Amino acid sequence: MSQIHKLTHKIYYVAYIAASIDGRIAKDCHSGTDWTSIEDWNFFQKSLEKIDAVIVGHNTYKLARARLKKRNAIVLTSKVQKPITKDSIIFFNPNKSNLKKFLQARKYKNVAIVGGPKVYNFCLENKMLDKLFVTIEPYVFTVGIPMFSSNKFKKYNFVLESVKKLNKKGTLLLKYKYAN
Amino acid sequence: MSQIHKLTHKIYYVAYIAASIDGRIAKDCHSGTDWTSIEDWNFFQKSLEKIDAVIVGHNTYKLARARLKKRNAIVLTSKVQKPITKDSIIFFNPNKSNLKKFLQARKYKNVAIVGGPKVYNFCLENKMLDKLFVTIEPYVFTVGIPMFSSNKFKKYNFVLESVKKLNKKGTLLLKYKYAN
Repeated sequence: MSQIHKLTHKIYYVAYIAASIDGRIAKDCHSGTDWTSIEDWNFFQKSLEKIDAVIVGHNTYKLARARLKKRNAIVLTSKVQKPITKDSIIFFNPNKSNLKKFLQARKYKNVAIVGGPKVYNFCLENKMLDKLFVTIEPYVFTVGIPMFSSNKFKKYNFVLESVKKLNKKGTLLLKYKYAN
Repeated sequence: MSQIHKLTHKIYYVAYIAASIDGRIAKDCHSGTDWTSIEDWNFFQKSLEKIDAVIVGHNTYKLARARLKKRNAIVLTSKVQKPITKDSIIFFNPNKSNLKKFLQARKYKNVAIVGGPKVYNFCLENKMLDKLFVTIEPYVFTVGIPMFSSNKFKKYNFVLESVKKLNKKGTLLLKYKYAN
């Protein structure tokens, strides 16, 4: 095995999104995901057990600060110039530092992307999204925070790997694989 | 049977929406649904065989003018004061005339709602949406036209009735029943 192979390892990036039928993940950027089903919450918590680190945006961090303290969390933010560590939380500006190199150096193998829309989009744009779990709760919100936040239309291809009905009212868990 | 029962009949309103994973129905209001799968198109065309009339918005009408001419179509628009008929097409301002009464008078029993976002939202707000077929094509667009266009967040409840995988890449057809 060459030196190059030893220096880098494959990182699996898995995004978790819970949304309404019409693709809204929250009412506004200050509101959480208290409207999602207990079955989705249980799936999400169980999934995180296998994860080395989670990537979140600053709004998501503020909403889930207490829970994130228990994990290795990377908070993407434009408010820092270089990475700042507070306990298990790292505030990281991906426009100033190389996030992939950082994750490699930390030896993380399984990384969860848990929102919000700017973070999902950043990871998708930068080929840091191998799998996508979308939970569709059986509601229509008509407005609210979209899944992805971007300035430019682009068609990213996925392949559906599985569909699971989580409860009686019809919460659906879809698993997609990135296919571009 | 009383006179009242004879005067009105139940109208079934069924909405059809094809969207990306992130809930976008088109790139912009001038672009159509040419990105959707042939399997969804076949399902949609077959469904319309059982329909007495379709309700569309003005942008959707402009995109599908030729095909709509073959059907009873009601084009919702603020540009007319009273209903204007051109062959099988009726231009109708729902803020000036009563749409439900109009559909009753025409003796329509099965009405399809086929977009865009303002029309879907109008029908949802006015209890003119009994069933909702959502086709999820395995793409992420990150931006684009949302399913619903509204000024106000509201949580509408649905119940999932069925899930069908339409093709190998994983186009999903979800059937919901309105449950508020």
